[in-house]
Amino acid sequence: MKKKSYLLGEIATILGAKLTGNPERLIDGVASLDSAKEGQVSFLGGARYQLIKSSRHEKFLSTTQASAVLVSPLHAKACPVDKLIIEDPHSAYLTLAKLFEKQFKKVPGIHPTAVIGSGCEISATASIGPYCVIGENCRIGENTSINSHAVIKDNVSIGKDVLIASHVVLYHDVLIGDRVVIHAGAIIGKEGFGMVRSGTGWEKIPHLGTVILEDDVEIGCNTTIDRGALDNTLLKKGVKLDNQIQVGHGVVIGENTIIAGCTGIAGSTRIGKNCMIGGAVAINDNITICDNVIFTAMAGVSKSITQPGIYSSGTGIQPQKDWHRSIACLRKLAKKAKKMENKQYE
Amino acid sequence: MKKKSYLLGEIATILGAKLTGNPERLIDGVASLDSAKEGQVSFLGGARYQLIKSSRHEKFLSTTQASAVLVSPLHAKACPVDKLIIEDPHSAYLTLAKLFEKQFKKVPGIHPTAVIGSGCEISATASIGPYCVIGENCRIGENTSINSHAVIKDNVSIGKDVLIASHVVLYHDVLIGDRVVIHAGAIIGKEGFGMVRSGTGWEKIPHLGTVILEDDVEIGCNTTIDRGALDNTLLKKGVKLDNQIQVGHGVVIGENTIIAGCTGIAGSTRIGKNCMIGGAVAINDNITICDNVIFTAMAGVSKSITQPGIYSSGTGIQPQKDWHRSIACLRKLAKKAKKMENKQYE
Amino acid sequence: MKKKSYLLGEIATILGAKLTGNPERLIDGVASLDSAKEGQVSFLGGARYQLIKSSRHEKFLSTTQASAVLVSPLHAKACPVDKLIIEDPHSAYLTLAKLFEKQFKKVPGIHPTAVIGSGCEISATASIGPYCVIGENCRIGENTSINSHAVIKDNVSIGKDVLIASHVVLYHDVLIGDRVVIHAGAIIGKEGFGMVRSGTGWEKIPHLGTVILEDDVEIGCNTTIDRGALDNTLLKKGVKLDNQIQVGHGVVIGENTIIAGCTGIAGSTRIGKNCMIGGAVAINDNITICDNVIFTAMAGVSKSITQPGIYSSGTGIQPQKDWHRSIACLRKLAKKAKKMENKQYE
Repeated sequence: MKKKSYLLGEIATILGAKLTGNPERLIDGVASLDSAKEGQVSFLGGARYQLIKSSRHEKFLSTTQASAVLVSPLHAKACPVDKLIIEDPHSAYLTLAKLFEKQFKKVPGIHPTAVIGSGCEISATASIGPYCVIGENCRIGENTSINSHAVIKDNVSIGKDVLIASHVVLYHDVLIGDRVVIHAGAIIGKEGFGMVRSGTGWEKIPHLGTVILEDDVEIGCNTTIDRGALDNTLLKKGVKLDNQIQVGHGVVIGENTIIAGCTGIAGSTRIGKNCMIGGAVAINDNITICDNVIFTAMAGVSKSITQPGIYSSGTGIQPQKDWHRSIACLRKLAKKAKKMENKQYE
Repeated sequence: MKKKSYLLGEIATILGAKLTGNPERLIDGVASLDSAKEGQVSFLGGARYQLIKSSRHEKFLSTTQASAVLVSPLHAKACPVDKLIIEDPHSAYLTLAKLFEKQFKKVPGIHPTAVIGSGCEISATASIGPYCVIGENCRIGENTSINSHAVIKDNVSIGKDVLIASHVVLYHDVLIGDRVVIHAGAIIGKEGFGMVRSGTGWEKIPHLGTVILEDDVEIGCNTTIDRGALDNTLLKKGVKLDNQIQVGHGVVIGENTIIAGCTGIAGSTRIGKNCMIGGAVAINDNITICDNVIFTAMAGVSKSITQPGIYSSGTGIQPQKDWHRSIACLRKLAKKAKKMENKQYE
Repeated sequence: MKKKSYLLGEIATILGAKLTGNPERLIDGVASLDSAKEGQVSFLGGARYQLIKSSRHEKFLSTTQASAVLVSPLHAKACPVDKLIIEDPHSAYLTLAKLFEKQFKKVPGIHPTAVIGSGCEISATASIGPYCVIGENCRIGENTSINSHAVIKDNVSIGKDVLIASHVVLYHDVLIGDRVVIHAGAIIGKEGFGMVRSGTGWEKIPHLGTVILEDDVEIGCNTTIDRGALDNTLLKKGVKLDNQIQVGHGVVIGENTIIAGCTGIAGSTRIGKNCMIGGAVAINDNITICDNVIFTAMAGVSKSITQPGIYSSGTGIQPQKDWHRSIACLRKLAKKAKKMENKQYE
């Protein structure tokens, strides 16, 4: 059971920070500089990929109502309240925040309303919530939680310390590693959107592959991942997907690649490891993205990328009148180019 | 209980319209000009932000099969059937449509299959549907409906006259005001997508904030709203979100801002009040959008906006050949610019 | 009951292929050239809209571990293992893959946990899964499967041989034809996002239409389709939608049009038949797209299209530095254009 409050002196010791202020002060939470109240600790970051950009928050330092602030030596003098001085306030904040994070009790066992198929192997330490429906021959590992209304079809295998949140659907034969987190509403393993023309209509290609999520993968809310047609859809160790991402059939994503919300990846594309893909990116089918690529938000990726680096597309936001002019100029240039092409044949 | 049909004369009185035609005619529905049949009233709009653009529908006036049409004095002469003449046919249509809108009976009480945690305060006039799962210490107000399969975790507070549709998930500690509508499949309050590098992988930042939806907020189907890392994610009074929108951790949206489907808003961004945000817009993290801003569909918003107005991005749609030329020209210009930059250092 | 393995000679006969190799070889699956193992058949495609692009896979032919490969006469000589020679290896693969596709047993009948309203007509050959909630006066046809947790509201009509997957929600009065497939998490028939200004806020327009899905329509996971305000939202025979697509109120989509994931279509737009719409496309409201139009991925369609053909938008992906230069040039052009406009009034 976690403590609900700490003395400021205790916190300084836990973080290894130098305290200038009252060590007996009672601290019961954390907050940002501009919203913090008495009893709360705030922080002013300094690292590059930080949670809260310091440029935006520095102005709140002088008027903060926090009882204490985590600051770098650089900002210590400007801090008007008790201070915890440390080289990397951002990392220290993460440690501090974990002290105040809520813990949810997990009750092992199978809720009486869960419907479980024959031939399942479910660890005695796993927890299956109300109204879960689990098919035949599934395997669920130690300390894994399956929350209410999750649907798990036949022959699914789930490792240990996994969280399957409410309303998740795992289709047949999906393989889930250890410490995987799948948030509410995500749907994994539907047959892919592979169609061929058939007379006047479309016929669905059989999808014989499955979806494999390796250890430490995280999948956001309402994200969808389709199974492969021939080979498997594969998310390697440590891949992190945000909400409302669509991953097409047969896609492979390399280790520790992280993808922000609303991005779509079309079928059979391969993405390298340690990539960072911004939100609302659209990635074409059947292309290859090498390791260590960064796509900025809303990039439209139509071709393979073979060199690590940062890539972008789009026109940037403009007042509508200026934008109309920009677009008109672009079209005039294209018309001129067309005329020149035509001249070559005269 | 609503009536299923009205006399045309009754309708004229209800709307305050001048009737030219048979007041005894029986009317049992409404429809658009080109699809209306006998017994139905149609309309030809005139207002600016109207439901049906009149330019498109005017051509159907002369051949309409409607029993009567709501028209402005401007179009009265051209109307070949009974007419209800009124200054603003569009507003009058809204009043008329409400007469024919279906009412669903709401049965107060808790369905015997609902699973309710300890310590909940549920109004006797609230309705909890089949297979709902509600955690501990939740509060549900008067006349609020929670539809089948909704999942509500611990310590959630919901006001009065709220509709929580089927398959909605509300994570712990979420706060919902009065008259809020949350449509099917929306997921509110998951921890945000805030990660920091940790050795070779990624570590999740603790998310200590929650999500607050103030009075009269509406949330579309399968929309996802994450909780804040430090401060709360906050949608102020009257905000309306369409389907499949993603709202990142710590985002604040001002009063009566309306956002169309498939838009994504990255973490910690603040949007002003009375903004109108088109569909499929992508808005960057940690930026600020002032009041009364309009973004057209598919705008990519990478930076803060400080002046009210209309903003756009993108190239507009072109036949593919012309588009290839436009893009080639854009790249040539960039190459020329690069050469000139390089020349400065020669 | 399907066979689990076939002799290579049997397969040659089924496909009508010319076999060069051992007809007694036992085959128990299919796989791509680079992942196939002993006992599996692979293929090297040749058709235009093929499942696996041959340019990418040809290099794997010489080292494949497959027991046999489906090849066109063109590639027969280069194939190092047993070969099934046929004019269109891609079509033959589809036939072959169906031999190995899993069949799921469907148990007719209503699961005891399903909640069914009064006045429903449910075929004796239909299957209703655990925890389904079905409203009043619904009609469900022969051999139709409704999977676990599906929610079907009052007066919904569903044809025969339909699949409604888990967690699907069908709102009141929705009409579903024969052989329709609706994948998990799709939500059909919510009132549309039609609002009018009302004092300081927004008022919802009554939505009196419904959603009609004609025969052979397919709807992907977490896709949302809103009901019409006045007329119906209508997807005609054979329309195929991928995952996470948003279809606004009153949209009409013509026969056999196919739409890839993450695309959004705003209200009252009409799309013709036999269109192919790429992923992440955004289509404006109240416009008309003619038959046989192709939109490439991420196209922003702001206006009606009256000529069949291929249409695109966007700038294409660039290294970020080059992209910055392109955008800067575009803005300079716009500024120059503005100056010239202003000069006209001097």
